[in-house]
Amino acid sequence: MKILAIVRLSARLIAHCATDRSYERRHPRRSLALLAVFLLWACAPVSFAQPLASWNDGPAKQAIIKFVADVTAEGAATFVAPSDRIAVFDNDGTLWSEQPLYFQGMFVLDRIKAMAPQHPEWKEREPFKSILAGDVKTALAGGETALAEMMVATHSGMTTDEFEAQVLEWLATARHPRFQRPYTDLVYQPMLELLAYLRDNGFKTFIVSGGGIEFMRPWTQKVYGIPPEQVIGSQGKLKLEMRNGKPVLVKLPQIDLVDNEAGKPIGIHKHIGRRPLAAFGNSDGDLQMLQWTTAGPGLRFALIVHHTDGHREWAYDRQSKIGTLDKAWDEAKAKGWTVVDMKRDWKKVYAFE
Amino acid sequence: MKILAIVRLSARLIAHCATDRSYERRHPRRSLALLAVFLLWACAPVSFAQPLASWNDGPAKQAIIKFVADVTAEGAATFVAPSDRIAVFDNDGTLWSEQPLYFQGMFVLDRIKAMAPQHPEWKEREPFKSILAGDVKTALAGGETALAEMMVATHSGMTTDEFEAQVLEWLATARHPRFQRPYTDLVYQPMLELLAYLRDNGFKTFIVSGGGIEFMRPWTQKVYGIPPEQVIGSQGKLKLEMRNGKPVLVKLPQIDLVDNEAGKPIGIHKHIGRRPLAAFGNSDGDLQMLQWTTAGPGLRFALIVHHTDGHREWAYDRQSKIGTLDKAWDEAKAKGWTVVDMKRDWKKVYAFE
Repeated sequence: MKILAIVRLSARLIAHCATDRSYERRHPRRSLALLAVFLLWACAPVSFAQPLASWNDGPAKQAIIKFVADVTAEGAATFVAPSDRIAVFDNDGTLWSEQPLYFQGMFVLDRIKAMAPQHPEWKEREPFKSILAGDVKTALAGGETALAEMMVATHSGMTTDEFEAQVLEWLATARHPRFQRPYTDLVYQPMLELLAYLRDNGFKTFIVSGGGIEFMRPWTQKVYGIPPEQVIGSQGKLKLEMRNGKPVLVKLPQIDLVDNEAGKPIGIHKHIGRRPLAAFGNSDGDLQMLQWTTAGPGLRFALIVHHTDGHREWAYDRQSKIGTLDKAWDEAKAKGWTVVDMKRDWKKVYAFE
Repeated sequence: MKILAIVRLSARLIAHCATDRSYERRHPRRSLALLAVFLLWACAPVSFAQPLASWNDGPAKQAIIKFVADVTAEGAATFVAPSDRIAVFDNDGTLWSEQPLYFQGMFVLDRIKAMAPQHPEWKEREPFKSILAGDVKTALAGGETALAEMMVATHSGMTTDEFEAQVLEWLATARHPRFQRPYTDLVYQPMLELLAYLRDNGFKTFIVSGGGIEFMRPWTQKVYGIPPEQVIGSQGKLKLEMRNGKPVLVKLPQIDLVDNEAGKPIGIHKHIGRRPLAAFGNSDGDLQMLQWTTAGPGLRFALIVHHTDGHREWAYDRQSKIGTLDKAWDEAKAKGWTVVDMKRDWKKVYAFE
């Protein structure tokens, strides 16, 4: 496999040099330069950093490595062409933490406080009144209506560019209440290594999250190495408007896709258009994505992150309101999906530990 | 630029070798193999096929080459990082022909005929009755209602897998009425070269079409080298169902996105999540996409294919019902966008000529 990968990459190099005729004129010592590159290459240390370094040896790590070996083994019945190596990852609770509240929820609370001076009427109106008084519990007692009002207030009415700037400013300034660190520090080091390991083996990695697509896209490239076009999430409707002779997209207060539960296979189909080879989640909201992925022909891989480490992170599953892991856990056991025990399987949870 | 590209690719090769410790054990003569690859590479002919070979020298070709040179010139103020080199292409009339009817329209007509035995009631019901009698004109006299009925009949009620199979079977058997060739033979050779040229220069190429996303995705990789996840188009709503214990996605008779006119920037934002650097279209349906693309900061590129060759292809613009080029043409003139004159600028239109 490696030899073929080298030949393929070399062919690209040849094409690179060869299609640019001016190259030879500009660089008469091309061969010397290439020789230098070759020497750099041939002398490189063969012992490079091991993949999945923050994973303890155990059934989860072994299952991942076996799956990747199987689908990349050229000539084997299990081989899958690189173009079909699609891996999808839930975000909240799978790539970063989601306690004590989904981080996008923390963003909503902070935005309401930041927007309050422009909304004096909120002082007398629930759920805003309670949030401004620091009483989230009372605010959330309003149920789905209260949540919808908070989402509309903070996620619509602005242009997509304005919203992106708000997300980035929040990430730069907000701190997680327990760890007193930026929320993007709370990504799981073992999962970052898993993303890199899959990409090194020809996989294209996607996020498929119930969270807002526009809440994630501004930072996923930097934090996860995943470009915006490979991020799928819940979406609101948009409207094209001309402002000062320039087109802008305005975020409307209507839902377009809730990318959770049955919405995940729909989001995958709409955005990717083919069935993933591997899916990674942590809660019942990921069940349909895992089912959809594993229902495809040939070898498929499904993995669930089980939050078992109350000391380094949080411990929760069937009874938790956030990241409930109940039905998906039962199905994982019945179907033999890989279940990661964070406490047992991960040497470290966060990079900063 | 090329040197850096080589160094980058070499770094990938090193990582490839180095992360696989078993490689050295399995292949003790690695250095010899690498040397062979190096020699193959260093001795490769420097004069490779020229890019854009089917384009006549002229302002359109020059504008394309200048734009690509500018955004790939490292160190220049116009340089754009490869990750931001996003190019979007309309499909009908930009990458393949669209006369005498959008090819998806031909698919609809053929599907109605193929489905007729299961729908005896169509013999008495318009617009189906007229289509089965070969009288498309009368069928289309029913206007949008008739069109919607035809779309619902042929584009909903089946699973996404079933629909994909129908598209592929149609492409394998249907012949274009004028050329008596498969519809996928009617792609423009100069545009295939343009797609390849952009990709060779680090661009990620996307289709952004008013046509159906599921009508295109089954064949765009093979025909254009564009994978399904880089195809954006009009979409219907979907429903997840369990059938025989397996999840399927059923196509519903409701529109989710009309990816045309103002829908194109919306489709781009939903799927790609960032503004393209370059956009290619041929009709007023592409105007907003071209405006959206060129409204971004820094260097942007907009190109319109003008159908001027009635002999080799078709000649039409302002008065045509299909592929109307009127407002977008005026704006191209006003803004200095590149306009391709097919007759003048293209040495050949189709590969089979």
